[in-house]
Amino acid sequence: MDTANAAPEPRESIFTIEATPVKFGPGASADAGWELGRLGVERAFVVIDPYVHAAGTAQGVLDSLRAAGVDVVLFDDVDTEPELAALQRAVAAARDAAPDGFVAIGGGSAIDTAKVANLLTTHGGEIMDWVNPPVGGGRVPPGPLRPLLAVPTTSGSGSEATTVAIVDLPHLGIKTGISHRALRPAQALVDPLLTRTAPAAVTAAAGLDVVCHAAESFLSRPYTTRPRPESPAARPPYQGSNPVADLWSAEALRTGGRFLRRAVQGGADVEARGFMMLAATMAGVGFGSAGVHIPHACAYPIAGLRHAAHPPGYPGTKAFIPHGVSVIVTAPAAFRFTFDADPAKHVLAAEYLTGEPQMPGDREALPRALTALMRDVGAPTRLRDLGYGKADLPALIDGALKQQRLLAVAPITPGRDDLERILRESL
Amino acid sequence: MDTANAAPEPRESIFTIEATPVKFGPGASADAGWELGRLGVERAFVVIDPYVHAAGTAQGVLDSLRAAGVDVVLFDDVDTEPELAALQRAVAAARDAAPDGFVAIGGGSAIDTAKVANLLTTHGGEIMDWVNPPVGGGRVPPGPLRPLLAVPTTSGSGSEATTVAIVDLPHLGIKTGISHRALRPAQALVDPLLTRTAPAAVTAAAGLDVVCHAAESFLSRPYTTRPRPESPAARPPYQGSNPVADLWSAEALRTGGRFLRRAVQGGADVEARGFMMLAATMAGVGFGSAGVHIPHACAYPIAGLRHAAHPPGYPGTKAFIPHGVSVIVTAPAAFRFTFDADPAKHVLAAEYLTGEPQMPGDREALPRALTALMRDVGAPTRLRDLGYGKADLPALIDGALKQQRLLAVAPITPGRDDLERILRESL
Ligand SMILES: [Zn+2]
Ligand SMILES: [Zn+2]
Repeated sequence: MDTANAAPEPRESIFTIEATPVKFGPGASADAGWELGRLGVERAFVVIDPYVHAAGTAQGVLDSLRAAGVDVVLFDDVDTEPELAALQRAVAAARDAAPDGFVAIGGGSAIDTAKVANLLTTHGGEIMDWVNPPVGGGRVPPGPLRPLLAVPTTSGSGSEATTVAIVDLPHLGIKTGISHRALRPAQALVDPLLTRTAPAAVTAAAGLDVVCHAAESFLSRPYTTRPRPESPAARPPYQGSNPVADLWSAEALRTGGRFLRRAVQGGADVEARGFMMLAATMAGVGFGSAGVHIPHACAYPIAGLRHAAHPPGYPGTKAFIPHGVSVIVTAPAAFRFTFDADPAKHVLAAEYLTGEPQMPGDREALPRALTALMRDVGAPTRLRDLGYGKADLPALIDGALKQQRLLAVAPITPGRDDLERILRESL
Repeated sequence: MDTANAAPEPRESIFTIEATPVKFGPGASADAGWELGRLGVERAFVVIDPYVHAAGTAQGVLDSLRAAGVDVVLFDDVDTEPELAALQRAVAAARDAAPDGFVAIGGGSAIDTAKVANLLTTHGGEIMDWVNPPVGGGRVPPGPLRPLLAVPTTSGSGSEATTVAIVDLPHLGIKTGISHRALRPAQALVDPLLTRTAPAAVTAAAGLDVVCHAAESFLSRPYTTRPRPESPAARPPYQGSNPVADLWSAEALRTGGRFLRRAVQGGADVEARGFMMLAATMAGVGFGSAGVHIPHACAYPIAGLRHAAHPPGYPGTKAFIPHGVSVIVTAPAAFRFTFDADPAKHVLAAEYLTGEPQMPGDREALPRALTALMRDVGAPTRLRDLGYGKADLPALIDGALKQQRLLAVAPITPGRDDLERILRESL
């Protein structure tokens, strides 16, 4: 095609920003009952992480619901990184319960499970109807869902601030999601006291996920480089970096760099754990607008292909790779690859993360800062640590290439060869 | 009372943050019809500023509504800084129109008028029933309002991002407001192209209001210094400064310092006017959470007591003092007074506003930066420029003292003597 004579394609000039209403602070979760009353909820389907439930950490939340006279239907059959079958069990239970609102207490798994149960009890259908195309049917919710109150107990996913629910489809070897603004929780209660009992390994993986969300959003392609959509409905949920998302992402990077090491030291440091929860939510607002890209695209096959072992320091016995770990291992190589798209912004991200000035033009500044953080919090730093070897590269590349929706948000779209280099460097 | 033996009063540990969903960029207002469709609105009561209407600036918005098949009822009888009677006319017209949604096109006056019309057509009653106590009845909306789409055409009030509607009550010599989260617009479309025709004087006053919103929020008392409320319902809408509101306020200060002078130069500088609109919305999110205090408390009597003349550069013939001018004139003295509450944060605000490092501990840094900005954009800098003299001080002090809801947000609560000093220094 002779592009020299083609009219320049009109570019996007518009970005949107939305944030879940957040109530933050030690003790905030005790307002759960009051918030449901405000939201008009009388019968709540409460999705609670089984380990959180067993530990009794969230007893105050349940007490507050009952004290407010809310009719509570408890559901704690939540899968870590939930697969389709686990989500289907939650949907079936929620359909039986016929609630007029939802509460999620736990990490991203519990919140995403509640989002899916809310969607299907409100608008019907099967889960795969709603999953993002091309894997699923990409059905669009015709109206709002019932109110969902999200009470995170880890400081990672930022799911309380996003419009996405992640769905693991092991029979297809991929993870994908359902994304629509209707999935956004009506209110989040972010209470640092709820993370006190989270083990160090869980806090580390969750915090590295936060840092990746922030770095990927901050370094995603600028929204003005996207083609102008035919209609407002054609705008993707992940719009690329923009001045408002950048604010949130930058602050999450600063906060992660400052508090993650301390938060991993122990649950008694309520200040550090509190700031990490706030960082998780801020990063969620940032990536909910701008998007995540290469590390998250690679994380799907990394977490999906090899459930090698039960991760040390995690409760339960399920063999899986924690999401934050699956994301962070390729981040240094990914940002080395995207560096040329905007060297100054990559160096700035490293300055936010380290709190130190960096050399202008230093391609290694951000990879170095990320690797130091991984080491300091005792996380695996390489694919090899997760049981992968050279022979796995083709399958990992194929899996990452399936995530075109995410790869499209990268500031330089990686081809097969680029992904091979990134994954090889991450071994 | 022997305070030495009293138990320490428990302090607030929680803050909340909410933001209106915003779509920002040149051309964003053309999505008005699509957004109403998404919000399920078929018949819209459209409150439009009469000068904006006459200038044809917002014709594209109206065209977009009609193209989307929305049944439009136009109302352009909007008062500048609306008085009770003007709001009552809007309510009566909206009741006749029986819409299922609202659109506001204009500055804070149009958006606030639409908020009030929406409240009263949804939940009934008289305006004074809903006005903040002690002036009004302080009635609480029992449920949500109809969707309001806010399309600002100036870069000042930030009303699109707040839950407040200002009501001028000249027979009582005060301005007050109605505030509740239900008043928050469902969506804002912030389109820099709509400000192209705004006169320099309007842009200057609006921009100085933005800078005041940001500086007052940033320097409001920390939320942790408030007593812990008896119940979540007892939390005031203005909570004091907190880490998330600070993010928004800081960025609005930086943006105002960087772009207001250019924006006042002329409407052709779409970049500068665009950033000022974004700053207005960001400052609106910040003060919607943290609150404004001394300059805004003083502004109410300053604007209310003396409608001396028609302000030069404004359309129409009404005699009034533009809100931004009434606010900024006491800001230097107000921040000189509050300096001791947190010297470092006052200096930081000056650094954000000037983009230059300042001397640590310099009480004059922020007053100097504000005065320079006022001068550079051709605004009045003193109460004297607005026709006030020493003889007016008692009445101004009395008026400011009536705004206890605002004064309570100051980092040091000013008494009568403090207000006298601030107002005298501002003469
Ligand atoms: Zn993630
Ligand atoms: Zn104002």
